[in-house]
Amino acid sequence: MNKAPTSELPPVAMSLYEGIRDLPIVSPHGHCDPVWWAKDARFSDPAALLIQPDHYVFRMLYSQGVPLGDLGIGPEGRDRDPRAVFRLFARHWDLFLGTPSRQWLEHTLYHTLGVEAPLAPETADAVYDQIEAKLASPVFRPRALFDRFGISLLATTDPATSPLSDHTKIAASGLSGRVVPTFRPDDLLNPQKAGHRAALSSLATMTDRDTDNYDEFIAALRDRRAAFRSAGATATDHDVPDLQTCWLDRDQITALHARAVAGTLNHVEARAYYGHMLVEMAQMSAEDGLVMQIHAGSRRNTNKALSDAVGPDMGADIPGALDWVGGLGALLNRVGNDPRLRVLVFTLDESTYARELAPMAGHWPCLRIGPPWWFHDSLNGIRRYFDNVVETAGYYNLAGFNDDTRAFLSIPARHNMWRRGVALHLADQIARGVLNKSEAARLGDWLAHDAAIDAYRIEGA
Amino acid sequence: MNKAPTSELPPVAMSLYEGIRDLPIVSPHGHCDPVWWAKDARFSDPAALLIQPDHYVFRMLYSQGVPLGDLGIGPEGRDRDPRAVFRLFARHWDLFLGTPSRQWLEHTLYHTLGVEAPLAPETADAVYDQIEAKLASPVFRPRALFDRFGISLLATTDPATSPLSDHTKIAASGLSGRVVPTFRPDDLLNPQKAGHRAALSSLATMTDRDTDNYDEFIAALRDRRAAFRSAGATATDHDVPDLQTCWLDRDQITALHARAVAGTLNHVEARAYYGHMLVEMAQMSAEDGLVMQIHAGSRRNTNKALSDAVGPDMGADIPGALDWVGGLGALLNRVGNDPRLRVLVFTLDESTYARELAPMAGHWPCLRIGPPWWFHDSLNGIRRYFDNVVETAGYYNLAGFNDDTRAFLSIPARHNMWRRGVALHLADQIARGVLNKSEAARLGDWLAHDAAIDAYRIEGA
Amino acid sequence: MNKAPTSELPPVAMSLYEGIRDLPIVSPHGHCDPVWWAKDARFSDPAALLIQPDHYVFRMLYSQGVPLGDLGIGPEGRDRDPRAVFRLFARHWDLFLGTPSRQWLEHTLYHTLGVEAPLAPETADAVYDQIEAKLASPVFRPRALFDRFGISLLATTDPATSPLSDHTKIAASGLSGRVVPTFRPDDLLNPQKAGHRAALSSLATMTDRDTDNYDEFIAALRDRRAAFRSAGATATDHDVPDLQTCWLDRDQITALHARAVAGTLNHVEARAYYGHMLVEMAQMSAEDGLVMQIHAGSRRNTNKALSDAVGPDMGADIPGALDWVGGLGALLNRVGNDPRLRVLVFTLDESTYARELAPMAGHWPCLRIGPPWWFHDSLNGIRRYFDNVVETAGYYNLAGFNDDTRAFLSIPARHNMWRRGVALHLADQIARGVLNKSEAARLGDWLAHDAAIDAYRIEGA
Repeated sequence: MNKAPTSELPPVAMSLYEGIRDLPIVSPHGHCDPVWWAKDARFSDPAALLIQPDHYVFRMLYSQGVPLGDLGIGPEGRDRDPRAVFRLFARHWDLFLGTPSRQWLEHTLYHTLGVEAPLAPETADAVYDQIEAKLASPVFRPRALFDRFGISLLATTDPATSPLSDHTKIAASGLSGRVVPTFRPDDLLNPQKAGHRAALSSLATMTDRDTDNYDEFIAALRDRRAAFRSAGATATDHDVPDLQTCWLDRDQITALHARAVAGTLNHVEARAYYGHMLVEMAQMSAEDGLVMQIHAGSRRNTNKALSDAVGPDMGADIPGALDWVGGLGALLNRVGNDPRLRVLVFTLDESTYARELAPMAGHWPCLRIGPPWWFHDSLNGIRRYFDNVVETAGYYNLAGFNDDTRAFLSIPARHNMWRRGVALHLADQIARGVLNKSEAARLGDWLAHDAAIDAYRIEGA
Repeated sequence: MNKAPTSELPPVAMSLYEGIRDLPIVSPHGHCDPVWWAKDARFSDPAALLIQPDHYVFRMLYSQGVPLGDLGIGPEGRDRDPRAVFRLFARHWDLFLGTPSRQWLEHTLYHTLGVEAPLAPETADAVYDQIEAKLASPVFRPRALFDRFGISLLATTDPATSPLSDHTKIAASGLSGRVVPTFRPDDLLNPQKAGHRAALSSLATMTDRDTDNYDEFIAALRDRRAAFRSAGATATDHDVPDLQTCWLDRDQITALHARAVAGTLNHVEARAYYGHMLVEMAQMSAEDGLVMQIHAGSRRNTNKALSDAVGPDMGADIPGALDWVGGLGALLNRVGNDPRLRVLVFTLDESTYARELAPMAGHWPCLRIGPPWWFHDSLNGIRRYFDNVVETAGYYNLAGFNDDTRAFLSIPARHNMWRRGVALHLADQIARGVLNKSEAARLGDWLAHDAAIDAYRIEGA
Repeated sequence: MNKAPTSELPPVAMSLYEGIRDLPIVSPHGHCDPVWWAKDARFSDPAALLIQPDHYVFRMLYSQGVPLGDLGIGPEGRDRDPRAVFRLFARHWDLFLGTPSRQWLEHTLYHTLGVEAPLAPETADAVYDQIEAKLASPVFRPRALFDRFGISLLATTDPATSPLSDHTKIAASGLSGRVVPTFRPDDLLNPQKAGHRAALSSLATMTDRDTDNYDEFIAALRDRRAAFRSAGATATDHDVPDLQTCWLDRDQITALHARAVAGTLNHVEARAYYGHMLVEMAQMSAEDGLVMQIHAGSRRNTNKALSDAVGPDMGADIPGALDWVGGLGALLNRVGNDPRLRVLVFTLDESTYARELAPMAGHWPCLRIGPPWWFHDSLNGIRRYFDNVVETAGYYNLAGFNDDTRAFLSIPARHNMWRRGVALHLADQIARGVLNKSEAARLGDWLAHDAAIDAYRIEGA
């Protein structure tokens, strides 16, 4: 029987886990597509649901020699039969032993899809058929699953120029919980993004402003932030590959903006421009209250042959070392003491947890540390996170959990893993005399549920 | 009941802990004010005792939006009622869950101040009154507490130009243990310190030497080291923000010294000058036997608005990445093989424990690794320290514990946490078959007591 | 009784350990001297066997003030009595508490040499005599021990210009297992190695090619690789102090080669040259199937006085921080997607495990992560390795274990420690519900035995 391994925890941890396992899910950051709940169409097939959109899954298969085309990904995979993709995946299921992907998928198969047989090459077809049958049922439509998962709030991540029409439809749909957008302006602010100039044009059209003019550009950004707030957004999100912020004087930034518009910035200028724009965003956040999320340190698309042949985001984003103090210095020294500002920081360089992020979050009023991100959203990643940040930042400078996923079905599994990780951590604290049981139970509730609501300034949840 | 959580440890760890819990305290590095024992005046009020001087405490409160003025700190806090400060602190007591500060304070409240009620907003006044009553009693005067804490030796940290008159008074006072100074010449050696030129003047006056002349300056430093040794000092201490050492030829250093005196060094020159002076210090340590302590890697006062408004040391010192091999290369290659030299190194970049410090201490005769420092003086910090350094450096290249505190009342609590951490570590070694019980017990004594005496060359303790 | 501490493990770990403890030993990377099995001469004395060649041992003694000459090492130690060396070592045996060296030596003394008395100053002579007596016996000759240790394959590491005559003799000797060479071309490829030009001459003579000509040089390298393959080699090995690769165009590399031959490259050029040659090696590996091992990040001979007086490799090699993404970028982007290529990477900077190596190995088809190396070949090193890499790279992107030792007698002890570390890790996975018992048992076999065979493309083992 495919019993999800989550049933096994040491006794004290198990008892803490049982106290938080069934709390509602708050998902304040992720990459689900709002069209799912706007249209409520059925999910297509098991491969399209579980394998092809999951970079954790296909990167592991690729690392062991499976061509992406064989998985139905990229130009070579265009007409690939989903059942063949699923069989191929099942044949390599052992590769995932010990990975969060395996734990998420086992949880999803067992708890959400009701698959009891362990996945294996010989069960691949039967499992495929079982999933297919479920997907055809109305109770597996996106809205029904949303309810069943017990999600009280879910935030999507949306380009700053999104019309947010799906969110409008969802709001009118009577969905049990809320789906809100998140303001993501990377394309508009970072001249090194491929779509930068196209995004500027869209913004101009959408706001009816001359975005070639710096003041008008800033005003247009304010317009869009207001639109997002009206649609329920409480946060912005920023992908920051090279962590650098700076504050330029008016002449400098208007000159750089003109060249950004013209597409003539060199690498150093483009970084300075983006570094300044992040400070502008922080200032706007202090004004309008949107929580600012900074995700830093991923080196994107490091496999050039693959990104040329198949496209970006093919599993070759690899983290690098970060300097948070130097990188955020200009931003923090400009607005970091403003009590209205909140900045959530996410790192892929765990050596900065105890060295930089915890000391910073334990000082700056604006800062909270986001949960373990990406490769570190795992039981050990969670263990290292708590072990490294709590002693200096405490629990109340943490931002709770978010799943950051585009794999909707994995949401309960991911929150479940976080809750198990929380329980294991708190049990360790009890065993060493750091917390007593009632303190641990209180912190369990905070970490599993309340912290995210508080960190993201979610009202009415 | 406010039972200090230190009572909870797994059985093997508990048994090891009980074997070392009550050993005398050796405190070879810290920042207590010697005037306390010279004058033996009563401590003023609970806020001034426990909150206002403790940067761990006020930085956490500041991080959650409490203005420093409300805590009676800085110009805005001048006339703040200490009881109001204590109430504010009690209201935010939950922020400290999981932090060493909470564990130290719980231990102090329970074991030293006899407070059994858990601290909470509703008990704040009663706890305040209880502490007040204790502080008024003669048995809570500094000398009585020193005896009661079982301190056999305590080292203060003193500017190189200190007249050491408090230490003279203490030596004549009949205190049960010893209080000795530590030679701290940062102000004289690092041209980037604010008080550099004033310190040079003091040195000139005090030693009656022309410190504008490099040879006389060096001789004056030797004079002061000798005075510290006469007052019982066995060590020097050096704050090294940017880890860099170098050995300049005579023409270079005399030219730089002239410009240091004139205050005209640029940043690069100032670093080279300080780097050279650290090597001079190491050479003097080889000659006179003073143990050289190097505390490296803290970026000071990174919140400029706060340091401008309130002053330095307001909780915004944040660590950065270090390169110990490159940074100490010149020093070690000049004197590192000299059997007379001892250098104790302290890091805030834990990624250097296993990568650099343990391999270095397991090779260079002069090096020992100081205990987890500052943010890392915590149960997890201690765990990471042992886990990362012992296998390569062994136990006998470690420097034991020191509390590094300016919070006198926390000294027993801090040594207690170290001893719990030692016991937990040794129990883990037993569980994995690395040590047997008698080896563990022997190492427990070494780590809890003997190592510090040996590392700091303390005689007669 | 000197009971090796390996007998102590928690129950679940013990049960897993017992399942893998007695598997045959596969040792695909190390530095044993093939002449031992070619000649099968007896080992000389206990000091020459256990102390003098073991840099882990003498560096620790040196760190506590024992001159290398007193250990019979270097010019000052030329006529040192081995018994005196052994006594000195026994007097300092406590220094090794908690180190892998102690665990390896205890295992060797007890299991291989039958010494039951604990080593101590007072037992030194008796232990010395016992070992002496064993070494005189035919069953302690190198071939007999090889059989007794249950080694199925052992790879030595050999200069590219080695005639491999010892391997020829061993192949004809009827040894129960195989001894194969590993192609190590550092001297030929890295112009910063002392022996670079002499190695080029040897290569020219040996292959009868004009190695001053770049194409002929490349052809000569191919010749030697073919010779190694004929002698059973399945791998190459590369020491890479500064991790940098690059691909130069033909004009650039031929120009640099001419200057490399002339010995006129500056530091930057020498690094570029070596960086290019590593890519050439990767391309040849894709062609001929030799597994490419990259050992990166050791700063060599950082104690200049010692290397001047005694020689290189005296325990002063200290790791530094690494950037694997930047460093391997050119190599991977040129050949990293080639399904024929396999590259095993070894790091001394553990902060790169989770940040870089695991994400890279979980993506690039060519990459597998080598086991914890050097200072990290220890119980905690193994724990950190698994905890940091498995979740992102899985188990099947790991290269199993290799002992990397020149201390033949320690081989069973080192594999034993790995197997204990594997058992402890897998037990932790079971306790947290990540693996069930049958998965753990399967992975135990893989990690203890099969993975090395698979990673190194060993056939018929």
